[in-house]
Amino acid sequence: MKKIHVIGLGLLGGSFALALKKKRPDLIISGYDQNPEHLQQAQELGLISVAREQPDPDTDVVVLATPVDTLADLLIQTLESTGDKTLVMDFGSTKGELCKKAAQHPKRKNYLSAHPIAGTENSGPKAAFEKLLDGKVLIICEMEQTDVHLKGMAYELFEVLNMKLRFMDPMEHDLHLAFVSHLSHATSFMLGKTVLDKMQDEKNIFDMAGSGFASTVRLSKSSPAMWSPIFVENKKNLIDAMDAYIENMRNFRDKIASEDYDGLYKDMEEANKIREILDLEKGG
Amino acid sequence: MKKIHVIGLGLLGGSFALALKKKRPDLIISGYDQNPEHLQQAQELGLISVAREQPDPDTDVVVLATPVDTLADLLIQTLESTGDKTLVMDFGSTKGELCKKAAQHPKRKNYLSAHPIAGTENSGPKAAFEKLLDGKVLIICEMEQTDVHLKGMAYELFEVLNMKLRFMDPMEHDLHLAFVSHLSHATSFMLGKTVLDKMQDEKNIFDMAGSGFASTVRLSKSSPAMWSPIFVENKKNLIDAMDAYIENMRNFRDKIASEDYDGLYKDMEEANKIREILDLEKGG
Repeated sequence: MKKIHVIGLGLLGGSFALALKKKRPDLIISGYDQNPEHLQQAQELGLISVAREQPDPDTDVVVLATPVDTLADLLIQTLESTGDKTLVMDFGSTKGELCKKAAQHPKRKNYLSAHPIAGTENSGPKAAFEKLLDGKVLIICEMEQTDVHLKGMAYELFEVLNMKLRFMDPMEHDLHLAFVSHLSHATSFMLGKTVLDKMQDEKNIFDMAGSGFASTVRLSKSSPAMWSPIFVENKKNLIDAMDAYIENMRNFRDKIASEDYDGLYKDMEEANKIREILDLEKGG
Repeated sequence: MKKIHVIGLGLLGGSFALALKKKRPDLIISGYDQNPEHLQQAQELGLISVAREQPDPDTDVVVLATPVDTLADLLIQTLESTGDKTLVMDFGSTKGELCKKAAQHPKRKNYLSAHPIAGTENSGPKAAFEKLLDGKVLIICEMEQTDVHLKGMAYELFEVLNMKLRFMDPMEHDLHLAFVSHLSHATSFMLGKTVLDKMQDEKNIFDMAGSGFASTVRLSKSSPAMWSPIFVENKKNLIDAMDAYIENMRNFRDKIASEDYDGLYKDMEEANKIREILDLEKGG
């Protein structure tokens, strides 16, 4: 393994490139971003060693880290412009549609469907940092569809980056991610919007916002260009999640209105169970 | 100033007592908690020097840091059992009702209505830590109703603790807090509940939850005993906030369902403005 090419040099692609460059200086990391400013920043920040649009035909691994609505075309195009010994993998946040589209491609075995569970509310090359992926979970879908040797190179990279591999069906991935990632982005965006709408003439009230508000609203700083396509692509699962959530919000509101202390207490006590589960995760 | 008494030795009361004990070892900090286990923990953790139910009659400052539905009775009772030279202040998260109830009391001038904007998702004496209040905003309502000399003692304590004072009408306080604190607690509790309801048989999916989910759901670990009364006491403002929020969530859901990329983008871009406002706050 000698040549890695990363397309999309934002937070995720940029952090991947940077971490590999530090940990494996023997590799040649090239990359591309269709935003010329981002491409220049990625070079200035040293995220990549070489800027080029197309990967060399003998590139070992090409990583696609662009918004999910661009991945299908980019994947087909990349599979067709690289050789039989090149692995192409994507880092998209939804997996069902892309796996479906890749299924019939003659070079399906050259593709690995991956999703690193890592991110922040920031985006672009300047948001990239070496440790983003360190110790994080990486979900791989339809691993059995990928050539064993090609897959081996990817696993080697993930090991270098100290990632924890999990294997999952793409449909199951999209269902679960709707609840543990996409829903919380939607609730946070709408929290930000609601508070700004109502308080637009009184910016000084944010002085009264504590760390709890900051934490809950943090994801509403996330990139619309990244999140619009994720929400739409996973709309079936996400709408189920949002409907259940809106129903719970409405019931909670009614319990407050009717001063139903017992009902409120019970709901919150149930929600409290998230503590043991997340603490378990953190420990494990 | 010699004697301080703190009633309610949880996160807030306990952190206040501990910080004062460290910064002003000349003061005698006594305290009480009606939960015997908490009272014992507070002593073992050294949050207070003396445990006693009633403050000495010559206590300089009594702090009430119990759930908001207990404050009115406790305030009246404390005002009536302490002398003319004792200041009584509460740390409740809602201020309108309590100020209304205190208004006609003959010892109104002995009362200061205060709300430190500080907290975590943890509660009880074990959650207390010395730096909780350091650098935080403290809101004071109806400052003009409090005796100048008595108020001076409180200001001295807040200065010792490095707090930033803000002055505000109690009704305005409750309206604003509904949006920048109570709403985010409600949304976070319901996020926790929704995800747990749907995923109760698949606890391992939390492995797939990133730091974004953890941040958004953090407040759902908060204490039901503390939050039920806050929600109910501020229900008028909070229900307005929740209705606006639920409406926004429903519109966002519909935009996802109809693949309205432009609408989604616009909503998120609007929510993004929270970044500059919070960053400004952090800098200021």
